[in-house]
Amino acid sequence: MECIRIFCPATIANISCGFDVLGLALDGVGDEMIIRKTETPGIRITKISGQQLPLETDQNVAGVAAKALLKDYRYSGGIEIEIEKKIKPGSGIGSSAASAAGAVGGLNLLLGEPFSKHQLIPFAMQGEKLASGVAHADNVAPALLGGFTLVRSYDPLDVIKLNTPGQLHASIIHPQIEVKTADSRKILKTQISLKDGIRQWGNVGGLVAGLYTEDYDLISRSLEDYIVEPIRSMLIPGYDKLKAAAKEAGALGVGISGSGPSVFALSKGSDRAREVAKAFQEAYTTIAVPFEIHVSKINPEGIKILEQW
Amino acid sequence: MECIRIFCPATIANISCGFDVLGLALDGVGDEMIIRKTETPGIRITKISGQQLPLETDQNVAGVAAKALLKDYRYSGGIEIEIEKKIKPGSGIGSSAASAAGAVGGLNLLLGEPFSKHQLIPFAMQGEKLASGVAHADNVAPALLGGFTLVRSYDPLDVIKLNTPGQLHASIIHPQIEVKTADSRKILKTQISLKDGIRQWGNVGGLVAGLYTEDYDLISRSLEDYIVEPIRSMLIPGYDKLKAAAKEAGALGVGISGSGPSVFALSKGSDRAREVAKAFQEAYTTIAVPFEIHVSKINPEGIKILEQW
Repeated sequence: MECIRIFCPATIANISCGFDVLGLALDGVGDEMIIRKTETPGIRITKISGQQLPLETDQNVAGVAAKALLKDYRYSGGIEIEIEKKIKPGSGIGSSAASAAGAVGGLNLLLGEPFSKHQLIPFAMQGEKLASGVAHADNVAPALLGGFTLVRSYDPLDVIKLNTPGQLHASIIHPQIEVKTADSRKILKTQISLKDGIRQWGNVGGLVAGLYTEDYDLISRSLEDYIVEPIRSMLIPGYDKLKAAAKEAGALGVGISGSGPSVFALSKGSDRAREVAKAFQEAYTTIAVPFEIHVSKINPEGIKILEQW
Repeated sequence: MECIRIFCPATIANISCGFDVLGLALDGVGDEMIIRKTETPGIRITKISGQQLPLETDQNVAGVAAKALLKDYRYSGGIEIEIEKKIKPGSGIGSSAASAAGAVGGLNLLLGEPFSKHQLIPFAMQGEKLASGVAHADNVAPALLGGFTLVRSYDPLDVIKLNTPGQLHASIIHPQIEVKTADSRKILKTQISLKDGIRQWGNVGGLVAGLYTEDYDLISRSLEDYIVEPIRSMLIPGYDKLKAAAKEAGALGVGISGSGPSVFALSKGSDRAREVAKAFQEAYTTIAVPFEIHVSKINPEGIKILEQW
């Protein structure tokens, strides 16, 4: 294989109670990337369409992630990367993670899979470090592994792919305002009450149990966040309205995607997810903020090959 | 059925990362209880052996729990309860919960099971309220349901029975010192760092995932407590020594049972659990505190009928 074209999924991190530990991959939303082997050593980003992003390898998350992989692998040739950005940077659905995970996931496939998907996570995290200053894994893990993922620990890194019930679908509204990850992190309290902590880990336990037993009611009851949502939702115009409308339309749960501004809802079945998306849309008609809507099933496999030659 | 003799299991609450939400039932350690129907209305505790505990219905956890059940059920007769206490009060392995759960579990069986096991939990919690001032569910839930249980929420009460891998065994050392639940609660900080909270709910997610996938390594990695153990372990003589010895002997994880002073370890297989118990014993030879040791598999069903007539 000399060249590969791949789909790099958008992702939802945090997922209500799972702040900093849970994430999931989307199927209908993502970037595309072409990676090809070249004889000239080095990594070159030859083209980026859809967004204005740096082509310099060391300034680009895909470049940095690919470079981290090649540092650990003997390969005398070079690679060229073309990126078709469909996920808007700053949307909160893992734009940088799609590029970082796509680069290492695609490169790994091109090289004959010398690394497992789990082994790719630390390389992709280097891309996240460039993007936000923090080498977090909660978006690159689901982008690489697919489905629901749990980052149990960073030291040592321990990422678990959880079971993903087949009927789960996501509806996402992306209000086109800028919320910087660094800013949305700054407003969080560094201390929380033990009482809220207990409720939060009770819900994480319930959500994980619900994912394994495919108990949609339990998933729904567990999708509550007592720690982060009350604070970060203040940065999202009309958040309470969106949440109420989505719940009214039958969503299992609603939360902030990553550090926002996108808001996601999970539903059982694609019909319900579309109704929830419509409720999002209607709730935003009186709010003077442009927005985009996505509806997607959960992507069970992560990075996908679209073409190879 | 006019009379029933039952086994009321001891239980481990908290289970490392699962402070206030997780619990499990033991198989080899527990009380016995005889409950019989009488014609004279009312609840009478006719005999308690093994411990000095009040026979007055309103002063006894079994009496109070049984009374809570009968308040919700039309029954014109009365009942008599005999309790053979084998679990020492204040041991941290659910002595009061065994009495409370036993009373309502046994009474429900005697009455032809008008309530589901889940429905019995609030009645048993009334016994806990008498014992410690707090109507907590983390011991009565596993005592009634068996296996591993998660108290996801108290308002509304939402208890989930989790999967319990068949090879899991517990080793317990009970140092015979008094640690009052109320005291061991008082020394906890009411605020925790968000960082520790995230590590804790990452581990709860990992532990629940490990229980469903029967991944003993993941269970082991997840059995860490960053919040409560560092504080409460100070009340238990030789805690660090016990923990190190059990881990050295191959335990999957070690923690404080309930609010202590008992210390538990979980192991894969009964042989390993016995070796861990031996390690507990050896670690305590130089400590001038008398102790008891228990080894038990996890009880999958909760309250068990021993005899009925």
